[in-house]
Amino acid sequence: MWFMRQAGRSLPEYRELRVGSKMLDACLDPHLSSEITLQPVRRHGVDAGIFFSDIVVPLKLAGVDVDIVPGRGPVLGAPIRTAADVAALRPLDPEALAPIAEGVARTVAELGNTPLIGFAGAPFTLAAYLVEGGPSKDHLRARTLMHADPETWDALLTWAAGVTGAFLRAQVLAGASATQLFDSWVGSLAVADYESRVAPYSAMAIGHVKDLGVPVVHFGVGTAELLPSMLAIGADVMGVDDRIPLDEAVRRLGNGVPLQGNINPALLAAPWPVLEAHVLDVIRRGRPARSHVLNLGHGVPPETDPDVLTRIVELAHSPVPESVHG
Amino acid sequence: MWFMRQAGRSLPEYRELRVGSKMLDACLDPHLSSEITLQPVRRHGVDAGIFFSDIVVPLKLAGVDVDIVPGRGPVLGAPIRTAADVAALRPLDPEALAPIAEGVARTVAELGNTPLIGFAGAPFTLAAYLVEGGPSKDHLRARTLMHADPETWDALLTWAAGVTGAFLRAQVLAGASATQLFDSWVGSLAVADYESRVAPYSAMAIGHVKDLGVPVVHFGVGTAELLPSMLAIGADVMGVDDRIPLDEAVRRLGNGVPLQGNINPALLAAPWPVLEAHVLDVIRRGRPARSHVLNLGHGVPPETDPDVLTRIVELAHSPVPESVHG
Repeated sequence: MWFMRQAGRSLPEYRELRVGSKMLDACLDPHLSSEITLQPVRRHGVDAGIFFSDIVVPLKLAGVDVDIVPGRGPVLGAPIRTAADVAALRPLDPEALAPIAEGVARTVAELGNTPLIGFAGAPFTLAAYLVEGGPSKDHLRARTLMHADPETWDALLTWAAGVTGAFLRAQVLAGASATQLFDSWVGSLAVADYESRVAPYSAMAIGHVKDLGVPVVHFGVGTAELLPSMLAIGADVMGVDDRIPLDEAVRRLGNGVPLQGNINPALLAAPWPVLEAHVLDVIRRGRPARSHVLNLGHGVPPETDPDVLTRIVELAHSPVPESVHG
Repeated sequence: MWFMRQAGRSLPEYRELRVGSKMLDACLDPHLSSEITLQPVRRHGVDAGIFFSDIVVPLKLAGVDVDIVPGRGPVLGAPIRTAADVAALRPLDPEALAPIAEGVARTVAELGNTPLIGFAGAPFTLAAYLVEGGPSKDHLRARTLMHADPETWDALLTWAAGVTGAFLRAQVLAGASATQLFDSWVGSLAVADYESRVAPYSAMAIGHVKDLGVPVVHFGVGTAELLPSMLAIGADVMGVDDRIPLDEAVRRLGNGVPLQGNINPALLAAPWPVLEAHVLDVIRRGRPARSHVLNLGHGVPPETDPDVLTRIVELAHSPVPESVHG
């Protein structure tokens, strides 16, 4: 078990370490990225680290004018919307990934037997930021571009698949033993649009690590309708958000697919008996799956009490109560 | 057929009329609200008007310190999060609804045979704004409150159902011949949470108009998993967003349920032949339903070319091409 966004704002030791450094600078400082990755492993005793970085790091390293604005998210100097905008995008020089590789290598050395998960954003989710120029409620400009100008869309997603795939590959080559492809905003799409205009580029992205033999977890929010299509890009493990129970995910994907998820982050502030019952219910509903990586159904909210996360890990690592077998 | 958000920012005559007036002031000025409601009916020739207002109007009229900030949405002076916050909420004095009733009555008189649809926000969506204090990506504070403090949640949603129900009732009594309950953000919930902690209050809200014999359309975004549960609150027509095709909605709801939807707003900027084929496909997929109110799958984006909307109305009102029958 591990927690999406376990490294980051919910930890006081993280907030202390980040004082005076900007988010993307921290991601590109191997000492900082490694230390931040290790913090939740030490504190919570989770079964894996996830490399501290951001999905826009490879965009930045490819020369895109992007910054992460506190309280807002990734914001671009100028949105990428036209054929000319896309044609001006440069490929990612593999040399630029050196600070990432070094951060991963340092982390893996420190982690010992605990595995490190590398990660990257899927092309659609990256495009959602690139086309909008920042965070948006419904990613409508990106969803419009795919229909209004399919050639520019194809060029943009092909570019995004290349840079994000290279980012993922660098992490695995440096020692990450699994990867997660985040397609956070893909739940805004109908299945038909996903399959024809998004999935091929996600497959292209994970194609960059397919020869390396590490499992790929694939995750997005609001994906109940999309799970089989998301699996079909070549994912090995499906991440499930908190909107459908895991036994329902098994019904949709078959029981041969390992699942990851899906404690509801909205319960992290509930009284412990309520949260405990929920965690045990998630474990019970995950039993029909081939295997189950316990996690949240979305990232750790910044205001989470870290002690609650530690307590969930202890619960998950304790002998399973009888009631869960039922 | 009509368009969600047909009255509003996509129309130059609207932007002209709104110069110098704040959004909530415009909603409470019967001359303005009526004129704005009529604009798209005149311009596009849609089959219904929808009263120009905002889901937070009844909150404002009940004394909540809320304003609509351009480019951001409803923002509260202070969020409503604690038992004390909720206890301090006042009921809505029916007298305060006079400007709404007058705006509706004026509009109905002008519309003649064209029906007017009244609308209101569902309690969950109102609570999403109240608890967060403004718009949010995932409504996590509201989703947390329902688990962390179920009694306060119950009190808050009961209050919200009362004020939004009164708002809806005032519109119907003044002449609206149908209503739409918007539960815009309900797609962020799992079915179990929706059924136990949200649906009863939505049913309470529409209970305020059940004796008046007007149909209630129920709509939210990302609701593919929730449609049967949303219908079960007592809705007469289900609005479907653009993420599942209407024939799939029929499979989930049965063919006895009238549907509304679901042209993808992301196609409004696509070349006309692409958009036209999509609209015809939506019409074709809606045929198995008991009846079909053609609409978008979400609101009209502000940057939409209004001529495109008019063209869609002309297409929908023209004799149906053979290909649609297939």
